[in-house]
Amino acid sequence: MNHTLTFTHDDKQASVTVPTNTLLADAARLAGIDIAQPCGGQGRCGRCAVQVTEGQVRRRSTLRLSPSDVEQGYALACQTVVEGDAAVYVPPQEKIERRLTTDRVVAEVTVPDDYEYPFSQTVRRVHLTLTPPSMDDQTDDWARLQTAFRLQHRFEAVTCSLPLLRTIGSTLRAGDWNVTAIIETSRLSDHQTIRLIDLLPGHEDEYSPLWGAAIDIGTTTVTLWLVDLVTGQVKAQVAEYNGQIARGEDVISRIIYASKNGGGDELRQRVLETINELLERACKRVKLPQGKVTPDQIVKATIAGNTTMMHLFLGIPAASIRLSPFIPAVNHPPALTARDVGLNINPEAAVDCLPGVASYVGADITAGVLASGLDSAENVTLFLDVGTNGETVLGNRDWLVTCACSAGPAFEGAGVVNGMRATTGAIEEVWINSDTLEPTYRVIGGGKPKGICGSGLIALLSEAFITGVIDKGGNVKLDAPSPRVREGAHGGEYVVAWGRETESGEDIVLTRVDIDNLLRAKAAIYAGFTVLAENVGIPLESVDKVLVGGSFGKYINVEKAVQIGLLPDMEWSRFEFLGNTSVKGAYLALLDWRKRERITEIAKRMTYIELSADNSFYEAFTSALFLPHTDLSKFPSVAEVLEKS
Amino acid sequence: MNHTLTFTHDDKQASVTVPTNTLLADAARLAGIDIAQPCGGQGRCGRCAVQVTEGQVRRRSTLRLSPSDVEQGYALACQTVVEGDAAVYVPPQEKIERRLTTDRVVAEVTVPDDYEYPFSQTVRRVHLTLTPPSMDDQTDDWARLQTAFRLQHRFEAVTCSLPLLRTIGSTLRAGDWNVTAIIETSRLSDHQTIRLIDLLPGHEDEYSPLWGAAIDIGTTTVTLWLVDLVTGQVKAQVAEYNGQIARGEDVISRIIYASKNGGGDELRQRVLETINELLERACKRVKLPQGKVTPDQIVKATIAGNTTMMHLFLGIPAASIRLSPFIPAVNHPPALTARDVGLNINPEAAVDCLPGVASYVGADITAGVLASGLDSAENVTLFLDVGTNGETVLGNRDWLVTCACSAGPAFEGAGVVNGMRATTGAIEEVWINSDTLEPTYRVIGGGKPKGICGSGLIALLSEAFITGVIDKGGNVKLDAPSPRVREGAHGGEYVVAWGRETESGEDIVLTRVDIDNLLRAKAAIYAGFTVLAENVGIPLESVDKVLVGGSFGKYINVEKAVQIGLLPDMEWSRFEFLGNTSVKGAYLALLDWRKRERITEIAKRMTYIELSADNSFYEAFTSALFLPHTDLSKFPSVAEVLEKS
Repeated sequence: MNHTLTFTHDDKQASVTVPTNTLLADAARLAGIDIAQPCGGQGRCGRCAVQVTEGQVRRRSTLRLSPSDVEQGYALACQTVVEGDAAVYVPPQEKIERRLTTDRVVAEVTVPDDYEYPFSQTVRRVHLTLTPPSMDDQTDDWARLQTAFRLQHRFEAVTCSLPLLRTIGSTLRAGDWNVTAIIETSRLSDHQTIRLIDLLPGHEDEYSPLWGAAIDIGTTTVTLWLVDLVTGQVKAQVAEYNGQIARGEDVISRIIYASKNGGGDELRQRVLETINELLERACKRVKLPQGKVTPDQIVKATIAGNTTMMHLFLGIPAASIRLSPFIPAVNHPPALTARDVGLNINPEAAVDCLPGVASYVGADITAGVLASGLDSAENVTLFLDVGTNGETVLGNRDWLVTCACSAGPAFEGAGVVNGMRATTGAIEEVWINSDTLEPTYRVIGGGKPKGICGSGLIALLSEAFITGVIDKGGNVKLDAPSPRVREGAHGGEYVVAWGRETESGEDIVLTRVDIDNLLRAKAAIYAGFTVLAENVGIPLESVDKVLVGGSFGKYINVEKAVQIGLLPDMEWSRFEFLGNTSVKGAYLALLDWRKRERITEIAKRMTYIELSADNSFYEAFTSALFLPHTDLSKFPSVAEVLEKS
Repeated sequence: MNHTLTFTHDDKQASVTVPTNTLLADAARLAGIDIAQPCGGQGRCGRCAVQVTEGQVRRRSTLRLSPSDVEQGYALACQTVVEGDAAVYVPPQEKIERRLTTDRVVAEVTVPDDYEYPFSQTVRRVHLTLTPPSMDDQTDDWARLQTAFRLQHRFEAVTCSLPLLRTIGSTLRAGDWNVTAIIETSRLSDHQTIRLIDLLPGHEDEYSPLWGAAIDIGTTTVTLWLVDLVTGQVKAQVAEYNGQIARGEDVISRIIYASKNGGGDELRQRVLETINELLERACKRVKLPQGKVTPDQIVKATIAGNTTMMHLFLGIPAASIRLSPFIPAVNHPPALTARDVGLNINPEAAVDCLPGVASYVGADITAGVLASGLDSAENVTLFLDVGTNGETVLGNRDWLVTCACSAGPAFEGAGVVNGMRATTGAIEEVWINSDTLEPTYRVIGGGKPKGICGSGLIALLSEAFITGVIDKGGNVKLDAPSPRVREGAHGGEYVVAWGRETESGEDIVLTRVDIDNLLRAKAAIYAGFTVLAENVGIPLESVDKVLVGGSFGKYINVEKAVQIGLLPDMEWSRFEFLGNTSVKGAYLALLDWRKRERITEIAKRMTYIELSADNSFYEAFTSALFLPHTDLSKFPSVAEVLEKS
């Protein structure tokens, strides 16, 4: 039976007719209204609540709704089904603002010394000059081209897709039998194969740019570097929130959403949209004397990302990643093309999805290990990737062990009321006067603040703790002598910036809920590496270096990160902050086939330790849910500071 | 500027708005009215004439229209463009009736003695039993499957497409880690590759049918055999007119149509529709105790067809085939899948397009040579493919030469007023009483006649000639003493069956135009092989055997084919009629990879002789435009008959 639903949202109305038992969230989408489901539609976060003003619905769950909410008609759009005609009011949705990135996400990249085009590169440009056909030589176009490959370049078996084959006849004639081929060489055991990526009329300048993209698909942020494969130089760096966020803020929520009917395809489309938009944006950034760069000129893309992101990007069901015994469908995806995956670049472009190790240690980590140099370190080194998933690798050139824990997106500014990415307008550093409890802050770009980014959140949490605004359990001390400390909608909160100072005119605050999210994130990461070290019997103190990856890592204030118990309390000189090692690893693999092979080796060499099978992780996590830790003796430098203050 | 056109057709009206200079044919298609263009829209055949009853149009050509036709508003839909609002009457269109085929197109096929599944076959079914994953063995699904391939079957490098990869996780679990894989093995130089075509839960009976299709794409007729690859048996044989006929009756017209905007894609869709319909029909013919066969169970298809048909099927531009120096885009198409080409079978099914030799000697001939055994003959043998294109191969196991000439579709029943394919209702044999000039005929299926098929046309032409109804120039002798000889709409004609005897109630006739088409067809074929023999210096008399391919060939009456000068005048025992050798060759290649490789060798071994560069062909053709030939001394047996009569 069908029912008519009328949605009111943003002063507009939209109607749709759907069968009994359709979810309100699905019906709203059909009506063109996007209701965010940050927990992936599990009914867990309560943030998709809508108000049913007329008609009958059935609530499967009312978690996060009070009895009075239900009385007023509130219902979770992801947990409520249609049973008759109804009118539904959709409150304003949290907006994931799309912001232009600033230099803040731009890493300094130097082209590796050993990069030598075309020898290091799998993709290259070659010139061919064909003998024109005649009545005496009626060889077909494709065989004629193959002969030229064989005689002029010793390429024996060149392959070509059907769509490209459809175009070669006209290209050969347009170029008057002089053409430029863009090819990919690859090795299948001992057998070299050559694949035609594009054929262009005439002889293109052999050393003019040949475009590639290194892409890191983070759970929260997608980062893309546009690279000239001839010089190896990164010509543009762009980043954006992953468009999947509205359907779950962590990988588990995404997997749950993807497992629903049509959910997997929606998530695939959402991340493709994000990447395709980034491709456009990166191309626009490049100014060349020869003219514009367009995405269809990109002939190779190398993709890093955690295992769930890789599955969702490829449209591969990810459900088994979440369920014991936590098995991915594929750790080493096959060689693909842009046509296969749906990227808006040259459809024949090679799309190389880097290999991962396990369900929770993906290609972002294998790429990160390569980028960090951990795999060739002499001494025992710890590699931390501080992203939505806290992955840890411990080892050196002889051995590598790894584990993962779900940190949540707090350090990427998501799941925090005034959180944002490290772009213009983000508070990136905070100091609190211990006498007045008045803050001083620094804003990226220097203007009015819009929110707080990861490094700002760490600084804020640390300062609030050291100055006594919050206690070691993360509770805001409401009796603190400052008008900035107050009871807010989400419990106790501290006002970092008054509305008169901010871009939006609203106060920027740190709430109790934010503090909990930040505590969980830092505790998960801390517990991860301590358990890993215990497992292999290496005391944390004997770790020679701590390499911190993650795009925000580069701007962490070590002192403050130690004070909140995110990083272990050791000499600051032993820390190195590497920024986004995942995209950097993808970049190195994009350039050089030897480094690409090295990543495969790293993936094979890494021993994965499953924390969910480990009680000691839960214990370590619980102990770390304090500032800096239940056991203050693990943080002697912090104990010293607390004594002084 | 836009104009509104109103078409009247079959008592219905349809309107459409199109810009200035749109072709009437294109506008009609937009309005849902299909105007046949048998010459491919060249304005050559005049059969797309429509009547403009109101408004303004511009005629680019009025060929085939008389001044009075033009005065009455007639215009060629393929040559007339819109210049203002207009009303157009579309006369009833020639219908290409879709008829069910009878046993007449069903060849007797015996499975080759040397066929041994799975050793001869590239596609096979294997069982795999995987160790289920556990917390101690978190290997990903795809690697787990690959390990099983390696350990249980020694298959080292199995590849898999992304769409199939998306399904393996659920298949492995559905089969509780027991699965049946359908794989294709192939050889790239010395390197064996294994491709996964399908993965099914559980262990399917290893010797239950595995379905393949052998397909011959003829210019006029598409033939399809459905084959159980396990036993090698042909389980269904079906045939149908190629849906492209409405857009050109010969390859040249098709190429011209394909070169127009959107024409190539339309022709590709049309032949795909024909094949997909034949696949459905063939599957429905098979009754199995296990249940129904459906096209998605077909895992391999081998395609033969002339070079133009292969290009159009693959959507590859064919324009250069038609223009000197007559170069195809590709003679050896790469390995493809059903997804690549758009066949409605298992999307991963291997689609093997057989190799051709030149623009006018295609894979139908290389397959035909294999099927005929010519390539291993000890003595000099002549192979004729009597289809829309008359291709000839002369040679033995040591050498092969070949040429082609455009015969037209007359022998397939197209381009002849009462022509039809050899199915139920076709007159297949005719005798004319030399005294009364009254005919006797035999109808396939025994019922009322609907038309005349190829063998019937040869018999009719021969009888009419021998009995003096027509002269050696093909003119109907209007003074012949019979009411059956009369002046018709298309010149002189002979009534084979009166309306009272026929299915439709209309007379079945042989017209002057039909005779011209038949003469051109037989002359082209005769000229082809005589010039070829001359070229290599082999007198026709020293040819040991004449192998005749072409689906109708099997039913030719040799005596009558010699009498009209289609076949050379030699002992009847030296002729062999092989039926559709193209589909038979495709069938052999579908079964056995050694035979498939043999076809590639044949393609490489054949020397192609271009007749268009040869004046002697035109001379030979002109001399053969008579019954049986200008030079009666080449046909002593016919001379003898004529003397007697």
